[in-house]
Amino acid sequence: MKIMMIGFGTVGQGFAELLLEKKNELPEKIEIVAVYDKKMGGAVNHNGIDLKSLLEAASSGQVYSLQGGIKEVDVPNFIKEVPSDVMVEVTYTNLETGEPAYTHIIEALKSGKNVVTTNKGPIALFYNELKSLADKYNRILKFEGTVLSGTPAINLAFSSLKGSKINKIRGILNGTTNYILTNMQTGMSYSEALKEAQKLGYAEADPTGDVEGWDAMAKILILTNVLLGGGITKKDVFREGITGITADMVKEAIMEGKKWKLIGEAKVMGNRIEASVKPQKISKEDKLYSVDGVLNSIVFTTDTLGEVQIVGPGAGRRETGYAVLSDILSLS
Amino acid sequence: MKIMMIGFGTVGQGFAELLLEKKNELPEKIEIVAVYDKKMGGAVNHNGIDLKSLLEAASSGQVYSLQGGIKEVDVPNFIKEVPSDVMVEVTYTNLETGEPAYTHIIEALKSGKNVVTTNKGPIALFYNELKSLADKYNRILKFEGTVLSGTPAINLAFSSLKGSKINKIRGILNGTTNYILTNMQTGMSYSEALKEAQKLGYAEADPTGDVEGWDAMAKILILTNVLLGGGITKKDVFREGITGITADMVKEAIMEGKKWKLIGEAKVMGNRIEASVKPQKISKEDKLYSVDGVLNSIVFTTDTLGEVQIVGPGAGRRETGYAVLSDILSLS
Repeated sequence: MKIMMIGFGTVGQGFAELLLEKKNELPEKIEIVAVYDKKMGGAVNHNGIDLKSLLEAASSGQVYSLQGGIKEVDVPNFIKEVPSDVMVEVTYTNLETGEPAYTHIIEALKSGKNVVTTNKGPIALFYNELKSLADKYNRILKFEGTVLSGTPAINLAFSSLKGSKINKIRGILNGTTNYILTNMQTGMSYSEALKEAQKLGYAEADPTGDVEGWDAMAKILILTNVLLGGGITKKDVFREGITGITADMVKEAIMEGKKWKLIGEAKVMGNRIEASVKPQKISKEDKLYSVDGVLNSIVFTTDTLGEVQIVGPGAGRRETGYAVLSDILSLS
Repeated sequence: MKIMMIGFGTVGQGFAELLLEKKNELPEKIEIVAVYDKKMGGAVNHNGIDLKSLLEAASSGQVYSLQGGIKEVDVPNFIKEVPSDVMVEVTYTNLETGEPAYTHIIEALKSGKNVVTTNKGPIALFYNELKSLADKYNRILKFEGTVLSGTPAINLAFSSLKGSKINKIRGILNGTTNYILTNMQTGMSYSEALKEAQKLGYAEADPTGDVEGWDAMAKILILTNVLLGGGITKKDVFREGITGITADMVKEAIMEGKKWKLIGEAKVMGNRIEASVKPQKISKEDKLYSVDGVLNSIVFTTDTLGEVQIVGPGAGRRETGYAVLSDILSLS
């Protein structure tokens, strides 16, 4: 299988590292034949780019220095012209426009490529449209890494729960906020816990996307539109972040035997879907109570099994790289 | 897809009920063309047996009274002679010999039928042999319902974690014992909690298979041989049940912030596999701590994602019936 990578940051490199590590164990030969990253340039080699050289070039920010290297391209045209079986879209996330990933995915599908992405933007904003396009061109669109990184939440619901109706999805979908809230359990203030998360690289310098619930909201949009069949958009999701949670509120919760968690939730109510992201004070009986730190979890309520829960990492270079690998393997 | 059912007790009826309920939502037409149960007789109808009539006949124990009914057959011959795409094996479990399911599965594979079973006996005792036979005849052997009923633990590990190496499996694999231990948390003695479980139908009149850990051991054999690639047998699994757990031990554990759980565990140690089923006193930090009542759970330790946990029902008519449906859907 021949892969084209668009974007080669943390996730792209995490995927290439796994591919290198597992080369001899994979059921099929998987080769990266083209890479392009806006900051590092790209390279094309129809016989497969040497992964070790690629990772070295990326670590010095100079992918263009490889054999077959290129400094700058028109990306949509690059996607269209370079032959490959799968385009892996791992550029940066934009929750306003979904760009540039949205355009990349459209170009890939139209030129006959399957698509694997971990990019929340296009899937949260345009899933129905992109799915229709994939169907029209008889291609497959995979996006396990958009939710819970490589923890196979989407595949669980899609393939393992096939034949079940999912009526409700409820989860801890953002590791950064869960890490902050877990640390606040020990008495830290919100700003201390945030600083700690930033120090460890769990939170960005501008933490807005995580702490105001935007990231969790994107994931709820994806889960809702993909699994509950709802065509909802950002304005349909009530969203509240964790910046209003004080040390006192956490202390009070502890005294009641409870914890504050940022919960994303979507449920089918007749032919409407109710969706929200907000802090909830939950008790020990709640299946999400013991999901702490950077762990994420989703509880699916089904008509056949009642509640089925999956718990696993929600982020990480290797973990999200694995999401790409697992999607690619499912294509073969 | 044409199905033959061998055995038509709780699980078989649970499956037929789901099939009737979901008839119009399934991606493919699935028909039961043959049924045989030792106690109720059988029926054959190449155009599909009417499910409502079948379930009514079963509730009065007289499947043979249906059109195309038969009182007694030689089962292996019946499996061989009656055409169908899939044989569903849901007779009773025998952990000593795997029979009669073992013979049924062999006959089905040899006569070109795919096999779906929830029967732990043949998979726990003869997985490697049956898998080779399935491969030889180019048929598929599915058994999601042997572990955690319909909760898709096997499929999660097999398909969603494809590309990962699983190094360790650890879980609460038996609902009866977990229910008893959970009730003992409230101060009940072992025998009171057992009686309560029997009253609710969670434990059988002779509870040995559950409380002595045989059922959990069968599941550990299945998980080990299927997912860790180990060819281990009963004698390789250390097994201890919960009958030695006293109210005092439970009280002591509570005072330490801990709980007793019956844990099945298998880990790869170099080229050996260490497997056991035994009561363990676990602390709050343990991912299995909050899995209470009849719930089951497995934690898979992988080389790509660290720990991934699934939690769901471990038993039930509808839940295990769904395991059969989900396996059948995965064949199509």
